[in-house]
Amino acid sequence: MTTPTTSLAPLRVAMIGSAFMGAAHSHAWRSAHRFFDLPRLPVMQVVVGRNEARTQQAADQLGWAEASTDWRAVVEREDVDLVDICTPGDTHHDIALAALAAGKHVLCEKPLANSVAEAEEMTAAADAAVARGVYAMCGFTYRRVPALSLARELVAEGRLGTIRQVRAQYLQDWLADADVPLTWRMDKSLAGSGALGDTGAHVIDATQWITGQSITGVSGLLETFVTSRPVAGQASGLGGVGDATGERGPVTVDDAALFTARFDGGAIGSFEATRFALGRKNAIRIEINGTDGSLAFDFEDMNVLNFYDGTQPSRLQGFTRIYVTEPDHPYVGAWWPPGHGLGYEHGFTHQVVDLVRAIGAGEQPQPGFADALAVQRVLDAVERSAADRSTWTGV
Amino acid sequence: MTTPTTSLAPLRVAMIGSAFMGAAHSHAWRSAHRFFDLPRLPVMQVVVGRNEARTQQAADQLGWAEASTDWRAVVEREDVDLVDICTPGDTHHDIALAALAAGKHVLCEKPLANSVAEAEEMTAAADAAVARGVYAMCGFTYRRVPALSLARELVAEGRLGTIRQVRAQYLQDWLADADVPLTWRMDKSLAGSGALGDTGAHVIDATQWITGQSITGVSGLLETFVTSRPVAGQASGLGGVGDATGERGPVTVDDAALFTARFDGGAIGSFEATRFALGRKNAIRIEINGTDGSLAFDFEDMNVLNFYDGTQPSRLQGFTRIYVTEPDHPYVGAWWPPGHGLGYEHGFTHQVVDLVRAIGAGEQPQPGFADALAVQRVLDAVERSAADRSTWTGV
Amino acid sequence: MTTPTTSLAPLRVAMIGSAFMGAAHSHAWRSAHRFFDLPRLPVMQVVVGRNEARTQQAADQLGWAEASTDWRAVVEREDVDLVDICTPGDTHHDIALAALAAGKHVLCEKPLANSVAEAEEMTAAADAAVARGVYAMCGFTYRRVPALSLARELVAEGRLGTIRQVRAQYLQDWLADADVPLTWRMDKSLAGSGALGDTGAHVIDATQWITGQSITGVSGLLETFVTSRPVAGQASGLGGVGDATGERGPVTVDDAALFTARFDGGAIGSFEATRFALGRKNAIRIEINGTDGSLAFDFEDMNVLNFYDGTQPSRLQGFTRIYVTEPDHPYVGAWWPPGHGLGYEHGFTHQVVDLVRAIGAGEQPQPGFADALAVQRVLDAVERSAADRSTWTGV
Amino acid sequence: MTTPTTSLAPLRVAMIGSAFMGAAHSHAWRSAHRFFDLPRLPVMQVVVGRNEARTQQAADQLGWAEASTDWRAVVEREDVDLVDICTPGDTHHDIALAALAAGKHVLCEKPLANSVAEAEEMTAAADAAVARGVYAMCGFTYRRVPALSLARELVAEGRLGTIRQVRAQYLQDWLADADVPLTWRMDKSLAGSGALGDTGAHVIDATQWITGQSITGVSGLLETFVTSRPVAGQASGLGGVGDATGERGPVTVDDAALFTARFDGGAIGSFEATRFALGRKNAIRIEINGTDGSLAFDFEDMNVLNFYDGTQPSRLQGFTRIYVTEPDHPYVGAWWPPGHGLGYEHGFTHQVVDLVRAIGAGEQPQPGFADALAVQRVLDAVERSAADRSTWTGV
Repeated sequence: MTTPTTSLAPLRVAMIGSAFMGAAHSHAWRSAHRFFDLPRLPVMQVVVGRNEARTQQAADQLGWAEASTDWRAVVEREDVDLVDICTPGDTHHDIALAALAAGKHVLCEKPLANSVAEAEEMTAAADAAVARGVYAMCGFTYRRVPALSLARELVAEGRLGTIRQVRAQYLQDWLADADVPLTWRMDKSLAGSGALGDTGAHVIDATQWITGQSITGVSGLLETFVTSRPVAGQASGLGGVGDATGERGPVTVDDAALFTARFDGGAIGSFEATRFALGRKNAIRIEINGTDGSLAFDFEDMNVLNFYDGTQPSRLQGFTRIYVTEPDHPYVGAWWPPGHGLGYEHGFTHQVVDLVRAIGAGEQPQPGFADALAVQRVLDAVERSAADRSTWTGV
Repeated sequence: MTTPTTSLAPLRVAMIGSAFMGAAHSHAWRSAHRFFDLPRLPVMQVVVGRNEARTQQAADQLGWAEASTDWRAVVEREDVDLVDICTPGDTHHDIALAALAAGKHVLCEKPLANSVAEAEEMTAAADAAVARGVYAMCGFTYRRVPALSLARELVAEGRLGTIRQVRAQYLQDWLADADVPLTWRMDKSLAGSGALGDTGAHVIDATQWITGQSITGVSGLLETFVTSRPVAGQASGLGGVGDATGERGPVTVDDAALFTARFDGGAIGSFEATRFALGRKNAIRIEINGTDGSLAFDFEDMNVLNFYDGTQPSRLQGFTRIYVTEPDHPYVGAWWPPGHGLGYEHGFTHQVVDLVRAIGAGEQPQPGFADALAVQRVLDAVERSAADRSTWTGV
Repeated sequence: MTTPTTSLAPLRVAMIGSAFMGAAHSHAWRSAHRFFDLPRLPVMQVVVGRNEARTQQAADQLGWAEASTDWRAVVEREDVDLVDICTPGDTHHDIALAALAAGKHVLCEKPLANSVAEAEEMTAAADAAVARGVYAMCGFTYRRVPALSLARELVAEGRLGTIRQVRAQYLQDWLADADVPLTWRMDKSLAGSGALGDTGAHVIDATQWITGQSITGVSGLLETFVTSRPVAGQASGLGGVGDATGERGPVTVDDAALFTARFDGGAIGSFEATRFALGRKNAIRIEINGTDGSLAFDFEDMNVLNFYDGTQPSRLQGFTRIYVTEPDHPYVGAWWPPGHGLGYEHGFTHQVVDLVRAIGAGEQPQPGFADALAVQRVLDAVERSAADRSTWTGV
Repeated sequence: MTTPTTSLAPLRVAMIGSAFMGAAHSHAWRSAHRFFDLPRLPVMQVVVGRNEARTQQAADQLGWAEASTDWRAVVEREDVDLVDICTPGDTHHDIALAALAAGKHVLCEKPLANSVAEAEEMTAAADAAVARGVYAMCGFTYRRVPALSLARELVAEGRLGTIRQVRAQYLQDWLADADVPLTWRMDKSLAGSGALGDTGAHVIDATQWITGQSITGVSGLLETFVTSRPVAGQASGLGGVGDATGERGPVTVDDAALFTARFDGGAIGSFEATRFALGRKNAIRIEINGTDGSLAFDFEDMNVLNFYDGTQPSRLQGFTRIYVTEPDHPYVGAWWPPGHGLGYEHGFTHQVVDLVRAIGAGEQPQPGFADALAVQRVLDAVERSAADRSTWTGV
């Protein structure tokens, strides 16, 4: 820490949405400059929600100076430099376009949009904004888990050789109970898709990013195991306990999505996203096999990256459990001594760090909207394939 | 052990083939009655191979009374009760038909045949033989790994509720090096297919057996990463070291196979078989998610079955690492005290036990040829789908 | 969150020391009320250090309103309600006594003191302060790791039956290199002891707390593998890189400590604390075996508690990997959905939560100085035993 | 396999004892020459037991040509070349001395004897026999688990540098239930000691062998949790179900043993042997920390050795899970392709291989009685220390 934070130019943030993602983003805005050198000082200016009382309460709890219920007014405010979009996917397009038009930097949660067309429009706007020094980023936070950042480094250094196979799963189980109540996440008009877009998007982005390869085609299968759910109930975590005897409404998204894929570098891949893998809570499992090495990761042991170095003598070969808590691991040096693991929310803090540093440097933060659009196109191809008897579908 | 082995009626065995599978089967024929009560005493009568000297050597090493190079003569011998087929897939059909015609029981290695047509003919012959008290079994030995037997028991007891998802992988890496030499396993005319039929067959059988459900349709993707390999070289294990500078011949089978599937009980599945998953040596990984519980298995920790009991209080839920070495676990009581794990070859010994007991009881041993035919049809559907842009293909 | 934080009575904190522990405590003071309902609002009033410039910088970075170099003045200030002691052990006694005398609540890092005599005096002062509504707590933060809190709950509920065996290790490796430079942690006059008091203290407290039993006697062995270290060098994490060719000073503490123990409930225990377990970074490993169940924990997978329920049917028994991220697990409900694990610093946040709630309720926070004194007495007995040929020594 | 087994000179074996160890040894005598080249062909000549009918049954089941109840006569027989002692410890001395006197090679189960005096006498006899070309070996079979053999190789190659710390545990739980019936293993006059000699002996031998260092002194603690047990009951595995309401007899051995130790190369060690670690079935856990590397092993995952190579770049460091199933791993090449793990009994087969090869080569097999005597002296020192308030006791 070399520059007093008080001497930094402020970066005034407006956050739209204050639920799960809002809490995680707020913690990141509060914490980033406490552990990392930043070129600008984040200022938590205003949080926006639909319900005035609840938003006021969120402002108080999460540490925002003001609350508002009018995102259109907020994104125009002179005392706002950056708009952080934490709302469901159906609103991303309008908010992001308005914010960019108003000259605000944008951080937008994933998936970028609910359709390829929206994502294309958003990407075009983001590309145009760059000339004005305005930047947009999409919140694929898992890129900032140190173990996955290290995975990308190892691939980029050539330690895996040519990538041949990708195995990627995002397994949750919060819908396994047929009486978990309906929420916006099960409504296609709000969420765009189900497991596919919510969590599948993360592993699509992560594998493309880590391998440096793009998915060119897919064969998809979508399944909705439970087609109606209680309208009323008590939320808890992502799920909750519904009124099993009351009215039920339709689930209009996928409960689970499977697809096979080909990458432009010659690799083949197997993907799965599900909310029905009973016992798996947030198991982001990524395995990559190359000609010279392999990687394996599971978010349920998030501080670990398993690396198989095929160039070692065969007698000593094996997967090395790299405990990614050393000072020379990505992001880790800013935190605790070796062996003192990080948690889920650190990815969000790292995201703020990278975003603020990119803005400070006048560079495009990663992933930009174009990367998110690429993910959107894969999601779309999977849906089209699934609707057409799993026939191979180009991205 | 209640009956002296010397008072048992003999079951005289002829084994065709004496390589990797031959060694495993021989150990089983030697050991089964040493640990288990059997109704017949296996007698290792004759081993058959193509090369006289090598077969003679195999007889001596593996413990067979005689060696022969003429399987057609052997399967007709009066002093042979059972023919154990351990040869490559292209010969299964002829040997099995001849043996059944001669009134011999048959144990045939998997995959049952190199085509559905062959498998159908073999199954018809096996079905007809039953009336004569002659039985045929296919060697899906992994059913006899205690942890997987326990898996089937738990599903059958309803502990998983309704099965929703299956995740099955058979990962090896012995072809990852592009200079491993060509062998019969890479020649479609001998092996039928590559990873798909060799190891994929195992997980198809295992998942159908454990879940009690049949695969009804698939979408497949096959890939051959290395299309030619050295003709000459030194074998080692399944692979070896080829002459990288010499002549190369074509690989005519798949190196890796991916497919998605639907089961007749409503489950969906994701399957993979590969010889290119660098660092995974014999990773048969099977995960099953039901409405009430889940299972996870990895052959690289073969004495363990992980079981998630969704009916436990949520505070205590988690995957239980069942160390399958207790007397009340399948097969285990015949071996060592708790905690003294078994190895790969025990599956073959258990296979002999179940086969000899079925023969003794005059019952169809499991899996019969019909079960193996069902696997063959899935393999065929995967190949047809892969050849047709992964389009969904009924089994 | 029911009460606006702004309507809470402030709890004004002065923190003495601003290094590793200072950073962790600061994060906790910043974050606790953002995730938990508290009866008082922590206010980060002033941080105290020896070096004015560095302390000023720490105040800025860590978020303290003021910096000071005079702890004696600070602990007397009217606008300070609580003194948080994060300095090396040799100063704990004086600061804590002064703070308690001034009527301030105290949070003191462990080990409580560098001698039993000091700890006794501090405990007496803390006991006396209670009558004035002033409370003292010792910072055994690992009690607040959710998995260890759950461990205590399970024992208290009787799920383990009678405790028979304890296995506790605190393994680090930051001194394994003989050229790591000398710091205060290797100086007995400042640190009191080495691995024994620094990390051994944690597992002594944790096992006494979890089992509800007290250690009554020990047999100890202490070892210093590297008896001198470079005076100069570059710190990194807890260790660093010393000047291997320059002056060396004496290491006056233990590098590793082993001891066996008996508990007052009949259990026996095996303990180890070391800084030389190459490859183990912060492996707090605690195993407890009872008549009805067992527990196993490793901080290197900190969100997991392994529980063996001996009352289950033997066929299903095994260690259950409880992923301690459910809403009904201790502390977890305030954070993220299931499966989104916590990190090292969360223990400190939970510590603040419990402390502030105890103060708000007018109750003794746990662990009090008396608990810390009990640990101190075990440390002392181990040292006395080690100095007397490991002879059994009462606590 | 180069020499036909039929052309080998026979090595005629008499086995004394036919229970658990007898079954394991029989399997080894039957199997060794089927997988390994041997210089002599084992012939299973005669098995000796106390009960004529049971011994006859054992001969039949285990594959011995004859049964006898008179070990004294058998060890004198001209058609016996080697005596394999699988009886409880109180008989080892007499049988081994008689066999050596009769010029027979001896394989003796561990612990070598029930006292140091007996072990010394046996070792003197074994040493004297060498001049006559007669060899004696002690059955510390765990040396022959490939992962532990590899461990020794890595230490011998210097990959761990100087050994500093040893952590060794042998955890079982078959006595955790207070109503498991009394057997010879709980009777000091027959077994010598309890967990200490039965399983502690294994980890003492293993750690001395792997490190190449000898234990020079110890501080011990012994505990008997359950001091009386049902005289009647049904055995199962090592334990069983006793008659809880009937007569109870005294347990005269330790249920659990803890000790700390120093090695002559400067290492310190922590040891535990117990039959009360509920949930641990046969957990032989050995960890070794050196200046350059570390090892970790657990028999409950017996085909794996975890190796930490401290000379790797810190970014890539971690414990490598070596799956010890490659052709260049000890013993493994004789078995199956990579990834096809071995089980408990393979250690016994490897023991026979090494013994027969040593006899064939006219060399002392390892471990000889002198190595076993060294273990006996450690056991004795632990018992003396435990009886003297854990005071440090030289070996």
